Amino acid sequence: MKVVVLNTGSELLLGHVLNTHLTYIAQEIFPLGLRVDRQVTVPDGPAIGRALAALSAEAEIVFVTGGLGPTTDDITREAAAELLGLPLHEDAQVAAEITLRLRSRGFAMTDRILRQAQVPKGAVVLPNVNGTAPGLYLEAVSSKATPHLFLLPGPPRELQPMFQSSVLPILEKIAPPGEGMKSRIFRLACVGESVVEKAIGPQLLALPEVELGYCARMGEVDVRVIGPARTLAVADEIVRAAFPLLLFTTTGEDLEAVVVRMLRERSATVAVAESCTGGYLAHRLTNVTGASAVFLAGFVTYANAAKTAALGVEESLIERCGAVTEEVAAAMATGVLRKTGATFALATTGIAGPEGGPEAKPVGTVFIALAGQEGETTVWHRRFQADRLAFKHLTTQSALQMLREQLLSTR
Amino acid sequence: MKVVVLNTGSELLLGHVLNTHLTYIAQEIFPLGLRVDRQVTVPDGPAIGRALAALSAEAEIVFVTGGLGPTTDDITREAAAELLGLPLHEDAQVAAEITLRLRSRGFAMTDRILRQAQVPKGAVVLPNVNGTAPGLYLEAVSSKATPHLFLLPGPPRELQPMFQSSVLPILEKIAPPGEGMKSRIFRLACVGESVVEKAIGPQLLALPEVELGYCARMGEVDVRVIGPARTLAVADEIVRAAFPLLLFTTTGEDLEAVVVRMLRERSATVAVAESCTGGYLAHRLTNVTGASAVFLAGFVTYANAAKTAALGVEESLIERCGAVTEEVAAAMATGVLRKTGATFALATTGIAGPEGGPEAKPVGTVFIALAGQEGETTVWHRRFQADRLAFKHLTTQSALQMLREQLLSTR
Repeated sequence: MKVVVLNTGSELLLGHVLNTHLTYIAQEIFPLGLRVDRQVTVPDGPAIGRALAALSAEAEIVFVTGGLGPTTDDITREAAAELLGLPLHEDAQVAAEITLRLRSRGFAMTDRILRQAQVPKGAVVLPNVNGTAPGLYLEAVSSKATPHLFLLPGPPRELQPMFQSSVLPILEKIAPPGEGMKSRIFRLACVGESVVEKAIGPQLLALPEVELGYCARMGEVDVRVIGPARTLAVADEIVRAAFPLLLFTTTGEDLEAVVVRMLRERSATVAVAESCTGGYLAHRLTNVTGASAVFLAGFVTYANAAKTAALGVEESLIERCGAVTEEVAAAMATGVLRKTGATFALATTGIAGPEGGPEAKPVGTVFIALAGQEGETTVWHRRFQADRLAFKHLTTQSALQMLREQLLSTR
Repeated sequence: MKVVVLNTGSELLLGHVLNTHLTYIAQEIFPLGLRVDRQVTVPDGPAIGRALAALSAEAEIVFVTGGLGPTTDDITREAAAELLGLPLHEDAQVAAEITLRLRSRGFAMTDRILRQAQVPKGAVVLPNVNGTAPGLYLEAVSSKATPHLFLLPGPPRELQPMFQSSVLPILEKIAPPGEGMKSRIFRLACVGESVVEKAIGPQLLALPEVELGYCARMGEVDVRVIGPARTLAVADEIVRAAFPLLLFTTTGEDLEAVVVRMLRERSATVAVAESCTGGYLAHRLTNVTGASAVFLAGFVTYANAAKTAALGVEESLIERCGAVTEEVAAAMATGVLRKTGATFALATTGIAGPEGGPEAKPVGTVFIALAGQEGETTVWHRRFQADRLAFKHLTTQSALQMLREQLLSTR
C-alpha cells in the first residue's frame, strides 16, 4: 500500500519547529509492513488543500499532521471535507468534552474553540488525551478512489498517544496480512553503539531473514531486530548472553520504570541526594506512575551549606576533600539514607559545566554513590563531556543502572 | 522567489534518521528575505528525478540534499544533469582532492568513489570540508525556465559548513534586494491559544504587510509576527499592552532562564519544596547555566513524613487539612524559606495522577505557594488535567510565572 505523510504548518517551513512526525510515523507503521513513500511539508493556508488533493490521488493511506486547532490558519479539517465532498457538523460529544476541558482549566469558551468539534460526515473521531482538537479518520472509498485519510494534531505529545491508541488499531485492520515479520527493540544502558555492534553485530546479521538497526541514544543503545519469530528468539539469546547486566528491557519500558517496578516487587524504597543533577534524578523516578509507593524523598543540595544542613555531610569533609569527590558522594548517600530510612539511597556530585567547578577537576567529572541498609556504600566515578542537559541525563542513567544492578542481586 | 527543498534518502522515510535540513536551511535563508514554500522527501532511486523535474517547474530556487555519494543508489547528480540536458565530465581538481583525502586516511581508491568527481557542464563546485562529495550549483537559465539548483550532501556536518561558505554568498547575489522583513516570536506563559488570538489577533492582522502565526505549547503560547520593522514595533506595543505580565520574552529565552536572570539581576536566591512535581522544578531551574548563583536547594518531599522531617510542616496540619491544600503548600514554602534562608521559596503540592490522591480531591488539583523574606505568602490553586509529565510541566510553568510576577514588582 502506498503511504504518504503531509505535514502542514508555516512554523515548519520557517525552521522554527523541527518536524519529528515522519520519523515517528515511519517507525510505528513499519512492523505492519507499511513504509512511507513520500513526505511533503506545506504552509498553513490554501496549499494544504492542493497538496491533499494531489497526494490523495497517488496514495492509499494519507497521514496529515497539523491545522486542526482553533485559529483561522487551521484549515485541514475543512480542506479534507471539501476534497471528499462531505458536509461538516458539530459533534455533540466532542463539543461537550472540549467545554469540560476548558472549564476545568478556567479558560473562557469562545466560538473559535468549538470549531474543533466540527466533524466531516462519516468520519471516525480519534480522541486526544493531551489536547482539545480530536483526530479524524476517513475510510477509503474505492468507488471514489479516495485513500484512507488520517487527520492528526500537530503537537507530538498529542499525535503520539493518539497514534498508539486509535491509529494503529485501524491500520492493523487495513494493512495487508503480515508475512509474519516481527520486530523487537533491545535497550541497553550505559554502553556505546560501536561496542554493541562489535559484540553482537556479526552474529545477528548471520540470522535468517534478519533486518538490523542501531539507534544510539543518550546513555543507551537500542538494537532493533526485524525478522521471523525464530530469528527473534535466537537474537534474544545472543543479546542476553553478551549483555546480561546492560540489557534492561525488550518491552519498551524506560530505565526509570524498570527500577521503580523492581523496587515495588521487592517492597523496597529509595531516596536521593543530588548536587549536579539538580533534581533530574528525582524527576525521572517520579515520572513513573506509582512511584509514590517507592520514592520517599529527594534533596537537591546545590550549595555546600545545603549538603551540610539537609544531609548532615560534615563541613570539614567538604573542606578537606572538596565537594566533587568520592568521599562527599558517599557521605551524601549515607546521609539521605539516615534521614529518610529508605532501603536504598543514591547521590550525585559533579561538575556539569560549562563553567568550571570550584576545584581543579575537569568539567564533566561526576561521582555517583549507592548506599543501602545492608552492605557497603559503593561509588562510581565517571566523566561525561556533554552539554548541561546531556550531562544530567548520562549521570542519572548511570545512577539508575547502578541501583538496577544492585536490585538484580537482591531478589 | 519561490524556494523548495527536496530531501532524498530512504533512511529518512524509514524513520531511521531525523531530517534537520529543512529547519537549518529555512533559518539560514530567512534573513535574505527567502522562505521555503514547500519541502518534499523521496526515497533513493528514480523518484529523485521525477520529484526534481516537478519541483524545478514550480520553483526559482531548488535545494536538493543527499544522493551525491559513491553508491549505486546515489543518483542526484545524474538526475540533475539529465533534467537540464547537461553532459557530465570528471573534474580533475575534484578527482585529485578525493584521491588525496582517501590516501591520507589509508582507504583504497575505487572507481565508485571517483563518481563523486563527475560534474555537469557549467556547474560550480562547492567544496566539502567534511567529506568527499562536493556540492554543485547550477545557475538558473531563464530561456529554459530552469531554477537555481543547489545539490548538497546529506550529512548535516557536510552540508552546514558548505552552506555557510559557498551557498549563502551565491544566495546573496541572486536574492532580490531585501524588503527588510523581520521576524519576532512573542512567548506568553500560562495562557491558551484562543484567548491570545481573541485578545490581539484582529489588531495584529490589521498591521501593514503582517504575517501572523500561533504555536500552542504546554503552558505557553508563541505568537510569531513577520513584517517590516515598523510593523514589528507596533506589534510589540500591542502584545505588551494586552499581556504585560504573561509576555516573558521576545528573544527566545526559556521561562526558567528568564527567572534565573531576573534573580541574578536582583542578587536574590530561590529554594524549592516539591511534592507533585517530584524534582522537575529544581531540574528546570538547574538546567540554566549559572543557576548555582541563585538556586540554593530543593526538597522533593513526596511522602508526608518527609514534609514534616525535611521542611518542618506540622504533622497535625497535614492530618487536619490534608496534604493537597492551600495550607500545606504555604507551610512547605515557609518551611523551605526558613531552612535555607533564600530570598524566595516556591512549593508545589497536588495530585498528578493517573491514580487518585489519598483525599477526595480530583486528579489534577494542585496548589502552588510562593513565600519571600518580605511580604505575605501567596498560593495559586489550579487544576491541570493532563498526563503525568504534562501535569508536572504545567505546574512548574505556573510556579515559575508566579515567581516572575513577584520579581517584576521587586526591582
